[in-house]
Amino acid sequence: MAIREKVFNTIIRCFKRHGAETIDTPVFELKETLTGKYGEDSKLIYDLKDQGGELLSLRYDLTVPFARYLAMNKITNIKRYHIAKVYRRDNPAMTRGRYREFYQCDFDIAGQYDAMIPDAECLKIVHEILNELDLGDFRIKVNDRRILDGMFAVCGVPDDKFRTICSTVDKLDKMSWEDVKKEMVNEKGLSEEAADQIGEYVSMQGGMDLAERLLQDHKMSQSKQACAGLSDIKLLFKYLQLFHVTDKVVFDLSLARGLDYYTGVIYEAVLTQAEESVSVGSVAGGGRYDGLVGMFDPKGRRVPCVGVSIGIERIFSIMEQKASPQKVRTTEVQIMVASAQKNLLEERLQLISELWNAGIKAELMYKKNPKLLSQLQYCEEAGIPLVAILGEQELKDGVVKLRVVATREEVDISRADLISEIKRRTEA
Amino acid sequence: MAIREKVFNTIIRCFKRHGAETIDTPVFELKETLTGKYGEDSKLIYDLKDQGGELLSLRYDLTVPFARYLAMNKITNIKRYHIAKVYRRDNPAMTRGRYREFYQCDFDIAGQYDAMIPDAECLKIVHEILNELDLGDFRIKVNDRRILDGMFAVCGVPDDKFRTICSTVDKLDKMSWEDVKKEMVNEKGLSEEAADQIGEYVSMQGGMDLAERLLQDHKMSQSKQACAGLSDIKLLFKYLQLFHVTDKVVFDLSLARGLDYYTGVIYEAVLTQAEESVSVGSVAGGGRYDGLVGMFDPKGRRVPCVGVSIGIERIFSIMEQKASPQKVRTTEVQIMVASAQKNLLEERLQLISELWNAGIKAELMYKKNPKLLSQLQYCEEAGIPLVAILGEQELKDGVVKLRVVATREEVDISRADLISEIKRRTEA
Repeated sequence: MAIREKVFNTIIRCFKRHGAETIDTPVFELKETLTGKYGEDSKLIYDLKDQGGELLSLRYDLTVPFARYLAMNKITNIKRYHIAKVYRRDNPAMTRGRYREFYQCDFDIAGQYDAMIPDAECLKIVHEILNELDLGDFRIKVNDRRILDGMFAVCGVPDDKFRTICSTVDKLDKMSWEDVKKEMVNEKGLSEEAADQIGEYVSMQGGMDLAERLLQDHKMSQSKQACAGLSDIKLLFKYLQLFHVTDKVVFDLSLARGLDYYTGVIYEAVLTQAEESVSVGSVAGGGRYDGLVGMFDPKGRRVPCVGVSIGIERIFSIMEQKASPQKVRTTEVQIMVASAQKNLLEERLQLISELWNAGIKAELMYKKNPKLLSQLQYCEEAGIPLVAILGEQELKDGVVKLRVVATREEVDISRADLISEIKRRTEA
Repeated sequence: MAIREKVFNTIIRCFKRHGAETIDTPVFELKETLTGKYGEDSKLIYDLKDQGGELLSLRYDLTVPFARYLAMNKITNIKRYHIAKVYRRDNPAMTRGRYREFYQCDFDIAGQYDAMIPDAECLKIVHEILNELDLGDFRIKVNDRRILDGMFAVCGVPDDKFRTICSTVDKLDKMSWEDVKKEMVNEKGLSEEAADQIGEYVSMQGGMDLAERLLQDHKMSQSKQACAGLSDIKLLFKYLQLFHVTDKVVFDLSLARGLDYYTGVIYEAVLTQAEESVSVGSVAGGGRYDGLVGMFDPKGRRVPCVGVSIGIERIFSIMEQKASPQKVRTTEVQIMVASAQKNLLEERLQLISELWNAGIKAELMYKKNPKLLSQLQYCEEAGIPLVAILGEQELKDGVVKLRVVATREEVDISRADLISEIKRRTEA
């Protein structure tokens, strides 16, 4: 939790810097709200027992509840973040940060705005967060659902096979092109020629230049949809240049992302220096979903949305593997109030009360007569940097012996100066 | 959420000041873990549907999961806080802060320590939190389960009626003594004489002096249990005097608290100035429960615990009723980056990127050419204090026009000085 708190703080600071507010939704939704939103994965939804009343399920992600919340409250504009747990009846894989109960961490911008401005801000946010968390080098892949669909159309994929071919393309980060092609042709019944044409496109990576080249491409330019997507990618890169983040962003035609509800730009961040031992896949992903809110509105009113989800469990698992357990403090205690002799409990209680009232984080041992050595040992173990030692002599002189745990340096401080001295030494 | 965040921060700051770490437990527990811990209220537990695998229920409070966690991980010493949601299939009462899903906010000290030192710290914490939240005057009632049991014994209550008589006494904050007595005699079959004797005791309130008087009381002093409780109350008051909090603490023999698992000191804080419109009952409560962890340990090893639960939903509902909705800001944005003329989107994006990178909380409107008036209006509505206005002239002069929303004052600031000027004006 101590490691997690640091990650949360970095991320929340970033979301707030971008003017987001936070909302909260219940951990359960009506079962019908979740039905038909997650395709095959619906079997992983946890249902509550029917004990009378509405049929309920535990939320599966934060995006569907967000869309339901916007429609229900008739909200047409909001920039919000939501960090909360979601639930999946899946096989856990602890080392890869996959659990049945896990945090999601979403930032979304809902509203009818000019093209690519909120989308670019989402990518800026991913860039800021991954930089600040210092997880090593990363790349943010960008694509557009309309480019994928246009590409499938001009390559001769039948309309009703777009989704299934798309989910095969999505496997390119784990499988070779040869195996992906085999699946397309043998399992999904695509012609070899169409597959080869797709193969040419999905090997392309670049920046604004690639978008320009594809706008001139004699095949791709036949698709209106693809052209709309490519123009937006150009615009996106223009904004990203102004944000100085294009060094990490790649326009990658192989990026597909599984979820059905995306309608425009999609993106995914991966760590490029990830070692084998901490292989974690993508650490952030998201995109534009302009149709989801309308599914919950009785009149089908659309609220365009774009968002990003930070893969916080994966980030936790990297941070936890990096951190040396000895060095992670689980509290922020600044000082221990200790005694050198017996029968000084009352004096300790009085002093610690003064410290608490002054906002100092302080602990004492819950014993009438603890040994000085065991009090000092406790400080070493818990990483408490200072000890205020009370003894008969100190009480007589109106001072406290302040001991620095790391250096064992000891110095007498008058009671009047103690609080400012503790602050000076621990609130750097 | 904005109001809630403030309350959380105050409470967490206090818990951390007292050296607590935080833990997290799953929202569901094995059904059998919760079985038999909540008496009659067990019917309010939410069960998950049997979809294969273990039978699970949603947690009902944070205390039972904490005890289960200690036993499972063989932890014998910890000071922890846990703020999380719990679930009850109850009839909601929104205005009184009672929901089916609600936050609990617990602080507990587990470990074998010298008497009343951690117990006194729990009361100090309640005192600090209620003071800081500024909810008006309050009282903390204190009693001890052993004093109640001893009192029942010396008043002639049969052993097997202790619990049921105790839960009738617990109603004294809502019912008159006459009605409580009727319930004891008519419904629970207690003799009128025993009831009258109880009536005499439960009308007693005081401080350390009352504990001393009762230790001399010819009836009460016959109960070993009562004497142990009374001696601890004396000790507790001694420590509370050193903490300077006795002005708010009352030893009140009518305080019973429902839960079965308490074994020693119990306490409850109430607001004394609560108006009729915001009647909320107790805002904090807790006590010592030395037997609960042992129920989860295969060898029955005991880990003594004392804790306090802050009634955070009730506090939210008071704060929300107090707050004027116009004045609650839901974001912390310091500045809006605006333009006075058309075609300055790129310049706005460049400037806001610089501000974000410098840690400034900033927003812009997601439009290519927003009107200045609508940008200023947005600031008024969202409570954003500053606007950085870009225009042709400002760009030529290398300055930004900084506008203070409240006073409409405008001043040209050089780009080099902008960040420090924003910080100076908004980070008071």
